[in-house]
Amino acid sequence: MVRTRLYRDGNLVSEGFPIAEVSDHVTDPGNVVWFDLCAPGAADLERVGEELGLHTLAVEDVFQEHQRPKVDVYDSHLFITAYWLHLEDSRLHPVEISIFVTPNALVTVRENAHFDIDKVTARWDASGDLAKNGVSFLLHGLLDYVVDAHFDLVERFDEEVEALEDQLFEERPMTRQDARKMFTLRKNMVGLRKVATPMREVVNTLLRRDLHVVTPEMMPYYQDLYDHVLRVAEWTDNLRDLMSNLRETHMSQQGFRLNEIMKKLTSWAAIIAVPTMITGFYGQNVPYPGFGSSAGFWWSSTIIVVASGLLYLAFKKRDWL
Amino acid sequence: MVRTRLYRDGNLVSEGFPIAEVSDHVTDPGNVVWFDLCAPGAADLERVGEELGLHTLAVEDVFQEHQRPKVDVYDSHLFITAYWLHLEDSRLHPVEISIFVTPNALVTVRENAHFDIDKVTARWDASGDLAKNGVSFLLHGLLDYVVDAHFDLVERFDEEVEALEDQLFEERPMTRQDARKMFTLRKNMVGLRKVATPMREVVNTLLRRDLHVVTPEMMPYYQDLYDHVLRVAEWTDNLRDLMSNLRETHMSQQGFRLNEIMKKLTSWAAIIAVPTMITGFYGQNVPYPGFGSSAGFWWSSTIIVVASGLLYLAFKKRDWL
Amino acid sequence: MVRTRLYRDGNLVSEGFPIAEVSDHVTDPGNVVWFDLCAPGAADLERVGEELGLHTLAVEDVFQEHQRPKVDVYDSHLFITAYWLHLEDSRLHPVEISIFVTPNALVTVRENAHFDIDKVTARWDASGDLAKNGVSFLLHGLLDYVVDAHFDLVERFDEEVEALEDQLFEERPMTRQDARKMFTLRKNMVGLRKVATPMREVVNTLLRRDLHVVTPEMMPYYQDLYDHVLRVAEWTDNLRDLMSNLRETHMSQQGFRLNEIMKKLTSWAAIIAVPTMITGFYGQNVPYPGFGSSAGFWWSSTIIVVASGLLYLAFKKRDWL
Amino acid sequence: MVRTRLYRDGNLVSEGFPIAEVSDHVTDPGNVVWFDLCAPGAADLERVGEELGLHTLAVEDVFQEHQRPKVDVYDSHLFITAYWLHLEDSRLHPVEISIFVTPNALVTVRENAHFDIDKVTARWDASGDLAKNGVSFLLHGLLDYVVDAHFDLVERFDEEVEALEDQLFEERPMTRQDARKMFTLRKNMVGLRKVATPMREVVNTLLRRDLHVVTPEMMPYYQDLYDHVLRVAEWTDNLRDLMSNLRETHMSQQGFRLNEIMKKLTSWAAIIAVPTMITGFYGQNVPYPGFGSSAGFWWSSTIIVVASGLLYLAFKKRDWL
Amino acid sequence: MVRTRLYRDGNLVSEGFPIAEVSDHVTDPGNVVWFDLCAPGAADLERVGEELGLHTLAVEDVFQEHQRPKVDVYDSHLFITAYWLHLEDSRLHPVEISIFVTPNALVTVRENAHFDIDKVTARWDASGDLAKNGVSFLLHGLLDYVVDAHFDLVERFDEEVEALEDQLFEERPMTRQDARKMFTLRKNMVGLRKVATPMREVVNTLLRRDLHVVTPEMMPYYQDLYDHVLRVAEWTDNLRDLMSNLRETHMSQQGFRLNEIMKKLTSWAAIIAVPTMITGFYGQNVPYPGFGSSAGFWWSSTIIVVASGLLYLAFKKRDWL
Repeated sequence: MVRTRLYRDGNLVSEGFPIAEVSDHVTDPGNVVWFDLCAPGAADLERVGEELGLHTLAVEDVFQEHQRPKVDVYDSHLFITAYWLHLEDSRLHPVEISIFVTPNALVTVRENAHFDIDKVTARWDASGDLAKNGVSFLLHGLLDYVVDAHFDLVERFDEEVEALEDQLFEERPMTRQDARKMFTLRKNMVGLRKVATPMREVVNTLLRRDLHVVTPEMMPYYQDLYDHVLRVAEWTDNLRDLMSNLRETHMSQQGFRLNEIMKKLTSWAAIIAVPTMITGFYGQNVPYPGFGSSAGFWWSSTIIVVASGLLYLAFKKRDWL
Repeated sequence: MVRTRLYRDGNLVSEGFPIAEVSDHVTDPGNVVWFDLCAPGAADLERVGEELGLHTLAVEDVFQEHQRPKVDVYDSHLFITAYWLHLEDSRLHPVEISIFVTPNALVTVRENAHFDIDKVTARWDASGDLAKNGVSFLLHGLLDYVVDAHFDLVERFDEEVEALEDQLFEERPMTRQDARKMFTLRKNMVGLRKVATPMREVVNTLLRRDLHVVTPEMMPYYQDLYDHVLRVAEWTDNLRDLMSNLRETHMSQQGFRLNEIMKKLTSWAAIIAVPTMITGFYGQNVPYPGFGSSAGFWWSSTIIVVASGLLYLAFKKRDWL
Repeated sequence: MVRTRLYRDGNLVSEGFPIAEVSDHVTDPGNVVWFDLCAPGAADLERVGEELGLHTLAVEDVFQEHQRPKVDVYDSHLFITAYWLHLEDSRLHPVEISIFVTPNALVTVRENAHFDIDKVTARWDASGDLAKNGVSFLLHGLLDYVVDAHFDLVERFDEEVEALEDQLFEERPMTRQDARKMFTLRKNMVGLRKVATPMREVVNTLLRRDLHVVTPEMMPYYQDLYDHVLRVAEWTDNLRDLMSNLRETHMSQQGFRLNEIMKKLTSWAAIIAVPTMITGFYGQNVPYPGFGSSAGFWWSSTIIVVASGLLYLAFKKRDWL
Repeated sequence: MVRTRLYRDGNLVSEGFPIAEVSDHVTDPGNVVWFDLCAPGAADLERVGEELGLHTLAVEDVFQEHQRPKVDVYDSHLFITAYWLHLEDSRLHPVEISIFVTPNALVTVRENAHFDIDKVTARWDASGDLAKNGVSFLLHGLLDYVVDAHFDLVERFDEEVEALEDQLFEERPMTRQDARKMFTLRKNMVGLRKVATPMREVVNTLLRRDLHVVTPEMMPYYQDLYDHVLRVAEWTDNLRDLMSNLRETHMSQQGFRLNEIMKKLTSWAAIIAVPTMITGFYGQNVPYPGFGSSAGFWWSSTIIVVASGLLYLAFKKRDWL
Repeated sequence: MVRTRLYRDGNLVSEGFPIAEVSDHVTDPGNVVWFDLCAPGAADLERVGEELGLHTLAVEDVFQEHQRPKVDVYDSHLFITAYWLHLEDSRLHPVEISIFVTPNALVTVRENAHFDIDKVTARWDASGDLAKNGVSFLLHGLLDYVVDAHFDLVERFDEEVEALEDQLFEERPMTRQDARKMFTLRKNMVGLRKVATPMREVVNTLLRRDLHVVTPEMMPYYQDLYDHVLRVAEWTDNLRDLMSNLRETHMSQQGFRLNEIMKKLTSWAAIIAVPTMITGFYGQNVPYPGFGSSAGFWWSSTIIVVASGLLYLAFKKRDWL
């Protein structure tokens, strides 16, 4: 299905019409048009750019990799880059969403289908009474969906941190799998921060009155959106602190375990070395007291038992065993 | 008991009347009304919102989780989110407090009953001579109580850090329980910072003259409140420094203990290995000097005692034992 | 002796008169009055507050614990909180000094007698030619004395860091006492920073022209004071860096020593294990070559000496011993 | 070939003419002249400086080492320093590029030939339709090429970090080569940051309207350039975070491996020490039960097998082997 | 020789005249006077202060220790504090240089002779054509010399860091001397930062137009100076990063070596323990198979060789030896 929509006076007039019709609708300033391109070719995009009068640089930016979330302000339109995050095999894959904003048109360009645009249209339909705000309303619904996704990820990472914390003080030492989890979690948090924190600047730019993007009625909604973005950024920072707490406590636990093992090693090595030394004495081929006699055997055995026993007790008392 | 209050000209006129009466009282601008909702349903809140003319977004925010302390400024009212912290089993549980502020009404919505609203009313009654400042007075008493609770927590954490410090240089090595305490303390400090530091911005926003929240007479009290908030933030930062000092010293002590153990291990292993080697020599089935004769026994015993004794003294001197 | 002073036209007119007379002197704007209270009761302070027209909040603040250095600007007076630091048993104890500043009166309230007010009066007397600047002059002398004390502490900590540095590369490993010193030093540095860095803001506020605290003649002196405060802050930051250098080098030295010990352990264990193995061979009750014959003894002894000697030389060459 | 170019009305009129002709062309304000000097002598540069009326300080700066990327604004011209980065044997070598910008001339001075100026001219030719913007156009092409090179390096470092991450959890412990790679990578990242982050300030200064460097048509292109610079800076910061994650996980893995080895050491040492102790007992020259009889042999062998076996099973159960 | 100079209209008129004549020259505003005091007494300085009308505070500041680089602006003159750094026995010793700047006089006060004032006069003579700028010219030459010295130090530290880096991956482990070098280097870098970074503020203050210190012709030279100061600050920050890279890699190498040693210890201990155990078996005084017969000897020897050989091969394969 083609993703196109035409709003007039806050009502959804038409949906799913071919993109070719867009240029007709756009000429009437009373119309508000949206359409979506998923992984378009360069030619498709160029044609769209010409029809809507978009700047060449903005159109080229869509295909550049490694962008950062940003708003570019051109004379007749805005160009916004944002990132959806797709979690697969516990790795984050950013999905670029390029957005062109003209006074009466919104174009969304998705890098691939991992970003589900139907969820956005559903959100638009759910708050239809605000639709008369036109592009301002559509853009809010879209960005709100993106930021909510960031939020869900922070929440998820928070839970994973909690899960790792619960394991921290269990008897069982941390395995290689746990270490990998911790590593991946931290890596993903860097990945999230990379695309989430610049959103502050993006939304803040949109709030500028001279851009006329946000209608008065939509203002509280954009401010709410801004608040969400701040929350994501703050929470990520908090998670970072929790992660260092986790990591450092983990390191300290490792050191603790090593100390425990060394203590036991010292102690048992000493306890076993003593009888070996004594039997060595009684194994000499020299006439020591008790050589070849039962008395020698009893002496040897007694000394072994007593010396080992005393050592054992001494170590137990110092909590070395 | 229903928590409602009606002030007129700085006097508490009525208390505990049903919430249904609120809308009547509110229409008279000479009245100041307060009421409290504890864990209300969505329907309850919506009705209140309609009666007082609150913005839908603000009403919805009450039910959103993972908020951050903030002030939202709407045309006709303010919406404040703050957090009470409830410590149970040495874990911090944030309790959200949502506050609606209109020119002559204050509504408090508590997430649950862990936040004891009676303590707030008691505080209001204690400084009744300021009551003629209306909502400004009520809001101050409420926020002051919340910030004082943050303050008490920092104080408590400070004491816990002190207690851990005292243990640091005791003979007994740190146990798993101590490590857990340190971990939890640090985690709680992150939790406190999360809800305490944004209060700076909250109180600072309230101090803005164009909002007309703070009456001239209340101004020094709000500035005092702001000072409290700053103190909480600064103290938390200080505690953080003390915690890293604690943690790093603890790590270094661990290393120190490991060195001690290794040194003793080396030394005793060497001392015990020497007699074992000598008795091995005298246990050979070859006619070494003294083989099978008393002279051999005396030589063997003498060498063992002298060699071990010399080693023992040498190690003692180097402080290795 | 009661600590009171009356200045008129830059001259010290009267000293040591009872506090009861203060209210008479204060009414004449040509007089400048100072008096000091050491650990006063709430009633004493309230009476003073009434006589000088001080704000209730400021008076109450004197008794609140855990303040931070600050200036509160009230309509008719200033309220300043600063901290003296008292070092006892190598622990820092902050002593709160509350200062009320009216156009012609200065009141100092000391938490306890550890802050020696006579040193301040001596400083006032030493620069008596500036006394005609009234309260501005008195306040400068007081704050200068407090900041100088902070400065002396940083200097002292600097010396302690130097002393610890000198020990760092000595043969003797760091003892528990050294570790404790390092820990306490760092803790004290946090304590100093807590009360010293907010002094920047305090002095900066006093420099504001609209407060009319600093007379034109005193301006360079206050700027000099500000410079001192900055120096304390910067030096503390530098010490922090030096401390981490110290701490991290110390950790690395620990690791170095552990490596040394492990290397020696490995080497000696190998050297001693070899003769033990050989004598074990010649102790077998089987007719190995040389069993029961002198040739066996010579072989055994030769192998032991040669094998151990070769190992020893090999290890020496690799710098393992 | 001499690198010179003459543009007139956006058209490339002449190329490769001798530098001596430059002074003639420059006098006509309708001409735009570019020429390039590679590793020139002091005399060459001075002559150019005189012809174009460049400030002595700017000319001297070309030969000063250890510059930082910057823009110096002189009355009649700009002097820009930027850095190309040349990667050889996995070490970064900065190549200084000095740029003089007058209203109708651009002079590029390269420290050495590692910076390939032909790539820049190719880029100019590729976007020839903007050439009518004169110096503004030429400068953009040059800086864009430099910043793209920084970008390529960050991308490359990102891949190297990824490659190191993949190795992190392999069975094989990290070798010295891997450690060296990690070290060099981090060093190179510092080197890149040193020359890349000040570019923010450089481009930002060029964007200042009062300098008249950027023509209106070029403005979006310079803003795009600025965005690239920001991306390089942000990505470098992200890489830094990923590197610390990598490094700390690596450290923790080392600790983990050490614990594993210690555990095995303890266990096997205990298992082998036990039979040695038992055979020692049966090697004594005293009439223990079974001395010289077959029963003794069976007892000895049974105890050895059973004791070792039990120990082995016990250790396996505790996951110590 | 007395260090005094008299300039008139940009020409050096007189040199080496007694300081007593200074007051005569200074009265003529067409004259520019410089003189230098090295480690003067308090009385000397006071007399100079009176002659030139310097503020008491500025004169006193010269003798205060632990200053920070700063500019104090008095009504009729400036007071500048800067630091020369003298490296002796690889320790940095700061040498305070106090500078008084009046409209037509420059006074330099050196803490001691380690700061060689002849180098400054040589620099003045080298750029004599700027001398008509009077005090502005002299001050620039002086500060430029100081900042160049800071720069040389950073360069030197950079080389030392490089030298340490080269050692990092050599076979030979780092010795105590290397650790000391690293420690001293880092300490010196803190010392340099302490006096170099505040120079930013110093030069920036001098650039303020309302101070009339910098003449229009000197402006590019002061901006160049400012650029130098920035470079020192940035480079120091970069070195800090390189140092942490160095230090952390060094720590990690230590851990790596410890692991290596532990692995070898484990392996050789196991290999040597096995023959000891076997010879123990054949040393028992019980009739094991082969007791007293040649078969026993061959069995024993074969088992020893085979078991040890197998272990050796197994360990080699796992890269444990």
